[in-house]
Amino acid sequence: MIPFPLPPVLTEPLIRRALGEDLGDAGDVTTLATIPPGRIGHARINARKPGRAAGVELAARVFRTVDPDLAVAIHTPDGAPLQPGTELMTVSGSARSLLIAERTALNLLGHLSGVATATAELVREVEGTGARIVCTRKTLPGLRAVQKHAVLCGGGHNHRFGLHDAAMIKDNHIVAAGGIAQALSAAKAALGHMVKIEVEVDRLDQLEEAITGGADVVLLDNMTPDQLGQAVGMAKGRCVLEASGNVTVQTVRAIAETGVEVISSGWITHSAPNLDIGLDLEV
Amino acid sequence: MIPFPLPPVLTEPLIRRALGEDLGDAGDVTTLATIPPGRIGHARINARKPGRAAGVELAARVFRTVDPDLAVAIHTPDGAPLQPGTELMTVSGSARSLLIAERTALNLLGHLSGVATATAELVREVEGTGARIVCTRKTLPGLRAVQKHAVLCGGGHNHRFGLHDAAMIKDNHIVAAGGIAQALSAAKAALGHMVKIEVEVDRLDQLEEAITGGADVVLLDNMTPDQLGQAVGMAKGRCVLEASGNVTVQTVRAIAETGVEVISSGWITHSAPNLDIGLDLEV
Amino acid sequence: MIPFPLPPVLTEPLIRRALGEDLGDAGDVTTLATIPPGRIGHARINARKPGRAAGVELAARVFRTVDPDLAVAIHTPDGAPLQPGTELMTVSGSARSLLIAERTALNLLGHLSGVATATAELVREVEGTGARIVCTRKTLPGLRAVQKHAVLCGGGHNHRFGLHDAAMIKDNHIVAAGGIAQALSAAKAALGHMVKIEVEVDRLDQLEEAITGGADVVLLDNMTPDQLGQAVGMAKGRCVLEASGNVTVQTVRAIAETGVEVISSGWITHSAPNLDIGLDLEV
Amino acid sequence: MIPFPLPPVLTEPLIRRALGEDLGDAGDVTTLATIPPGRIGHARINARKPGRAAGVELAARVFRTVDPDLAVAIHTPDGAPLQPGTELMTVSGSARSLLIAERTALNLLGHLSGVATATAELVREVEGTGARIVCTRKTLPGLRAVQKHAVLCGGGHNHRFGLHDAAMIKDNHIVAAGGIAQALSAAKAALGHMVKIEVEVDRLDQLEEAITGGADVVLLDNMTPDQLGQAVGMAKGRCVLEASGNVTVQTVRAIAETGVEVISSGWITHSAPNLDIGLDLEV
Amino acid sequence: MIPFPLPPVLTEPLIRRALGEDLGDAGDVTTLATIPPGRIGHARINARKPGRAAGVELAARVFRTVDPDLAVAIHTPDGAPLQPGTELMTVSGSARSLLIAERTALNLLGHLSGVATATAELVREVEGTGARIVCTRKTLPGLRAVQKHAVLCGGGHNHRFGLHDAAMIKDNHIVAAGGIAQALSAAKAALGHMVKIEVEVDRLDQLEEAITGGADVVLLDNMTPDQLGQAVGMAKGRCVLEASGNVTVQTVRAIAETGVEVISSGWITHSAPNLDIGLDLEV
Amino acid sequence: MIPFPLPPVLTEPLIRRALGEDLGDAGDVTTLATIPPGRIGHARINARKPGRAAGVELAARVFRTVDPDLAVAIHTPDGAPLQPGTELMTVSGSARSLLIAERTALNLLGHLSGVATATAELVREVEGTGARIVCTRKTLPGLRAVQKHAVLCGGGHNHRFGLHDAAMIKDNHIVAAGGIAQALSAAKAALGHMVKIEVEVDRLDQLEEAITGGADVVLLDNMTPDQLGQAVGMAKGRCVLEASGNVTVQTVRAIAETGVEVISSGWITHSAPNLDIGLDLEV
Repeated sequence: MIPFPLPPVLTEPLIRRALGEDLGDAGDVTTLATIPPGRIGHARINARKPGRAAGVELAARVFRTVDPDLAVAIHTPDGAPLQPGTELMTVSGSARSLLIAERTALNLLGHLSGVATATAELVREVEGTGARIVCTRKTLPGLRAVQKHAVLCGGGHNHRFGLHDAAMIKDNHIVAAGGIAQALSAAKAALGHMVKIEVEVDRLDQLEEAITGGADVVLLDNMTPDQLGQAVGMAKGRCVLEASGNVTVQTVRAIAETGVEVISSGWITHSAPNLDIGLDLEV
Repeated sequence: MIPFPLPPVLTEPLIRRALGEDLGDAGDVTTLATIPPGRIGHARINARKPGRAAGVELAARVFRTVDPDLAVAIHTPDGAPLQPGTELMTVSGSARSLLIAERTALNLLGHLSGVATATAELVREVEGTGARIVCTRKTLPGLRAVQKHAVLCGGGHNHRFGLHDAAMIKDNHIVAAGGIAQALSAAKAALGHMVKIEVEVDRLDQLEEAITGGADVVLLDNMTPDQLGQAVGMAKGRCVLEASGNVTVQTVRAIAETGVEVISSGWITHSAPNLDIGLDLEV
Repeated sequence: MIPFPLPPVLTEPLIRRALGEDLGDAGDVTTLATIPPGRIGHARINARKPGRAAGVELAARVFRTVDPDLAVAIHTPDGAPLQPGTELMTVSGSARSLLIAERTALNLLGHLSGVATATAELVREVEGTGARIVCTRKTLPGLRAVQKHAVLCGGGHNHRFGLHDAAMIKDNHIVAAGGIAQALSAAKAALGHMVKIEVEVDRLDQLEEAITGGADVVLLDNMTPDQLGQAVGMAKGRCVLEASGNVTVQTVRAIAETGVEVISSGWITHSAPNLDIGLDLEV
Repeated sequence: MIPFPLPPVLTEPLIRRALGEDLGDAGDVTTLATIPPGRIGHARINARKPGRAAGVELAARVFRTVDPDLAVAIHTPDGAPLQPGTELMTVSGSARSLLIAERTALNLLGHLSGVATATAELVREVEGTGARIVCTRKTLPGLRAVQKHAVLCGGGHNHRFGLHDAAMIKDNHIVAAGGIAQALSAAKAALGHMVKIEVEVDRLDQLEEAITGGADVVLLDNMTPDQLGQAVGMAKGRCVLEASGNVTVQTVRAIAETGVEVISSGWITHSAPNLDIGLDLEV
Repeated sequence: MIPFPLPPVLTEPLIRRALGEDLGDAGDVTTLATIPPGRIGHARINARKPGRAAGVELAARVFRTVDPDLAVAIHTPDGAPLQPGTELMTVSGSARSLLIAERTALNLLGHLSGVATATAELVREVEGTGARIVCTRKTLPGLRAVQKHAVLCGGGHNHRFGLHDAAMIKDNHIVAAGGIAQALSAAKAALGHMVKIEVEVDRLDQLEEAITGGADVVLLDNMTPDQLGQAVGMAKGRCVLEASGNVTVQTVRAIAETGVEVISSGWITHSAPNLDIGLDLEV
Repeated sequence: MIPFPLPPVLTEPLIRRALGEDLGDAGDVTTLATIPPGRIGHARINARKPGRAAGVELAARVFRTVDPDLAVAIHTPDGAPLQPGTELMTVSGSARSLLIAERTALNLLGHLSGVATATAELVREVEGTGARIVCTRKTLPGLRAVQKHAVLCGGGHNHRFGLHDAAMIKDNHIVAAGGIAQALSAAKAALGHMVKIEVEVDRLDQLEEAITGGADVVLLDNMTPDQLGQAVGMAKGRCVLEASGNVTVQTVRAIAETGVEVISSGWITHSAPNLDIGLDLEV
């Protein structure tokens, strides 16, 4: 999908938190001691490695939060592919403001583009199979909303956002409820009609019970491509099948070719390396 | 150093934010539909890969924030080495509370132990050289304090915490001030007597000017081990020398053997992969 | 379903906000001037009208937030039916604390029990039909989570919690997308596999297009029981049907008897009158 | 009085909270999937029932908070009477922004206009008697400031805003202090010279003691018009008399005609039904 | 009056803010490097100068916020007189926690006891005259509630808490309204029946107009004792008279002896010097 | 140094807190009752006593926060000397907005200019000696950042901002560590290379141990000028020497003439009297 900008009311607290970490109570002591107030600067933000852009609009908001008089121009939007040298944005105005905002903007941009790039790598591998790459709840604390946005920028899709917006019945729920059928029945009775229900299974013989019980989605955890293929055959389209576990750039194609519709990866959010993006400033 | 616990007044907002992302306005709908209120559970949190522990006390606070009646026992403190199977903590009490807290606790634990583990890898490489591994301001937004703590858990040290607590004179400051000597002179006049001043240089001929100007620390950016060795010879202990750029597990030993005292790495905070830590729950 | 307690991390900000409105910067000036610090009091909270309890646990938290030394005993849990005289809770301890907390506790209790009572009236009317009563997004600002909880206490179910956790395609979305089929297709491509999609229609001829396009739920807005009955016949169980518009105690039975599965009402959250609940205090 | 706008610093947190409930971490998923970014829309907000306007300026701020580029024109200010079809405001700009803000704006507008309308009904009944209709502390948590503003919009007046800004001596205070005279004496000694003191009595024989003790206002709780009339005769203007209890559209005129100056109603804030106000959007 | 403790829900944000200023993101780096975790300490907090205690309970909460396991004993409550050596409180427990909390606790204690001491000096001067010493809105930002509490501890009384809880008609209001009578009339029409109205006058000929217009209180600004005496004679008890301007320890007795009931001082809140209170720690 | 403006992201919460104290939930009831909405006013803010300006930019932000349409012109920047009559700023626009913001702006301006003025008095005394006047952690809760800024405006310098940004080894740390050498050694091992370390001594024989142990700064507490002179002779420039204790306008010159480089004073932040600054408003 075309990634869309998160509303500023959502991202403003994150930006203020991040700036607050850097500014403390004293502000940027180096800049204030060495850069005259009226000095003007021009900053260019460029990719230094290939990848996928995410957090560009967010970085622009960092600059504007520090100083509404900075002129920010976005040249490469969220979701666009990056090559070394691709110019993401230019910012002009007070050199002090540029230096104060630089690191916070780059930290967001580098991390989120890293998540988008990792996602895009998996997405490219499964091209043509019809399988979707989705993220999980294995996100970094305080960054879930922006990481989920970065996954979209990488061509992936979002799984549920938290414990609150969809049901996922796992082994402990099944044990406590007395079985898959009982757990599904309890969930259907308790939950609203707009809540999808997924059941996590780790054996093929559980699949039929989950489908019969009315699961919208079944998560096949840590299965081999062989087992996944069997599951696709058993399900016959009666529910959405999601594969998880051991999803890497090396393994994902084989998983996708089994016919599962969704492949989830914690790695793209909890372990994606930073994408190298730099800021060149002329003062 | 022996890593110390961050005061709860510092970590409470982060914990509440992280739990809020997961709970939304509806809470854990699956658990509430399938697990009876009185059900008791016992959770064991174990490392599944070798590494270094960080965030254990923080994870304990997550459980206690969700439910003060949970009994939490820490078996492996922050800073301890981990092997597959090392038990970090056990938690007993309401199965509902355990399931609600699980993912938030593991996300913190896995990420921070990942940072500590990455740090420890570099620290191990430089053993015996006297060089310190330190982190940078290239941290993840909202997580700086806990990432800096994790670096200590891995045997590293902290660089400045932000723009506010120490001065770092970089190329743009030098240009705007009219030279290294002028920038140092301006900084010394403006800043308090408890603020250390570092100058970043990328050519050896700048080093002497920085030392003469009174820099406490000089950052040698992107230099070869050869150049670093020359810098150590030139400095003769008159300032602390810090090396940065291209610091990897492969290169760090050679850098340390040049005699620089500090080696800084952005990778340990912006790109450390998650350490695999799992929770086994019996209900 | 059995209504469950909202986690304290969710309700604490609301409680503090409400207490803050009452206490301002000066606190309870009357009580502090007239009640000696050591004075003990015993409070009984009773229903004065028949209805359904909601907010009991929340009210208990109000008392404990004001003074952790108050002894609070809940006698009637959330979701229970109330008769005039039913005792909901008793609280003993510092008379000052009891008086400070009283109004905030009663405001929450009276409002939420009002919502539960209104819900229960509709639920009673549709008994035996299989139809569910659900709330909408027409909630009071800042109270959505607790109002949705109160709806559960009244025997109702929750619709989506906001714009974020499920999709609802309305007339404007249809116009902008170029038709129901196009809007559904765009939504399915863009949204995650755990997001349910509902389409709002106001003419019967739109229903088939919505079902064919793959809507999980179709909202039949402002239709007569006759039209609703036709819709049930047309849908043949291929999607969930929801009726809305003109839902009152007088009309709801006829709507339910058409066979729709879900009936939504804004009235139960935006217009439910307060349930009269009083606190008798002996000092 | 002419109702005045609440300062934005007061209302901004409420608006952000309300938008946050609706947007969660994912935003308006339906709109973003189906409405192209550049699409322009025109919204008209009209009353669908007769009543009194309140919250118009607040609703305008909701739209501007979501998107400062929306053009908002207010046609009917707070406090004005409404007929079915009265246009309150028009808003033009990004269709996405309009759809994101719509429900939050309407929820505030409908609720506060409901409060103003309920107030105006009582005010109309007492026209010509000189009695004032005032609200109480029986408000909805988090909404006190805006509900009190809505009461002004309906032609009513405000009672104290909380426990902090005026004293109200009730039965428990009297018991603990040892009598009305003692409680008043304690309050006068303890409280500042800018704090008014009211005494609540439920028997006529308490009135003289309250007046003699120096009460600024006496609240006559749950008295018949007859008793109220006697109280007016006894007080002879030595204090302000307030009547409360059983105040309805049916009873309020008789109460007002007894000559009491103030009549307080909890119903106008805790039970006022929503006023039906709709938004018509062309995209 | 007997000063009363501010509810913890009011003071908790202030305490957290103050601790946050001191702890930053790194905590107490000195203590953590030099004091072993298990080390126990005993702290005694003593006055070093004579004065009046305020903030004792608040300081106790600072220690408990840092570490709930600290044993805090209050020996001298808020409002008590202090001599050099008077022991205010003792605190025992983790030496680390004691050192972390020390400065924040002392900053609050020293400042608030300074305010109480300054107030008590004025109160002592006017003893026997019946005049009250009150504070103003000239408080330090963020500290109004606790400074107003400290004034009570010093034997003073509170003026209004802000612009919101009482009316004060000053010259600009008079000019804009067209005169004192018009301003009073507008205020009485607009404001609630629980709001007191004060008029500020700087000429004696305005006094009668203010009384006739129904002012509850008249502020006589910058008048000589002679003029104040005339005002008392003119008012004949028909309103409360408040004197302000040039109120010092030297002048206040003469002002009080004129018969005014209230004397207000900005000095006691905006300029009170810190009272020297020290903490002796044995580790 | 030239005092620099604090970034708005740092000062906005303080401004909102201060305005919130004054506005409560009801706003400025007097102004709203007596001043018509369209009334325009012109305010001049002037010094009434000689001193030093601080908080001017902050006060300007107060006016703009209340009403972005106010036209604010700064005539005397932070750090400039003030004479009675010096015009600091003029503000024009809505008379209502001017009156609402007035007291909050003046409270900040008067307090911070008081701090700057007190600092400037000490700075003037030491002119020509080369000694710096610095503040301490004895600041008012919630105001540390702005008080530290005011110290710069007075010509002083800042000491550390809190426990987190520099180390200060005091008697208890020395006792617990087993001596000055041990404490310094522990601190150097534990702390980052950008953290300066100061040791507080109260006897001259401790000085050599502190220097030998590698202290960057030594605090000489409560020593006579004679002792301070000896210390300067002993140190021979091997560390920075700071004097504290009994620092007053009377004593500071003698202290400075001993040759110490830094003189710290708690008085300039915890006891500086308000500088009289007034606002004249024409409506």
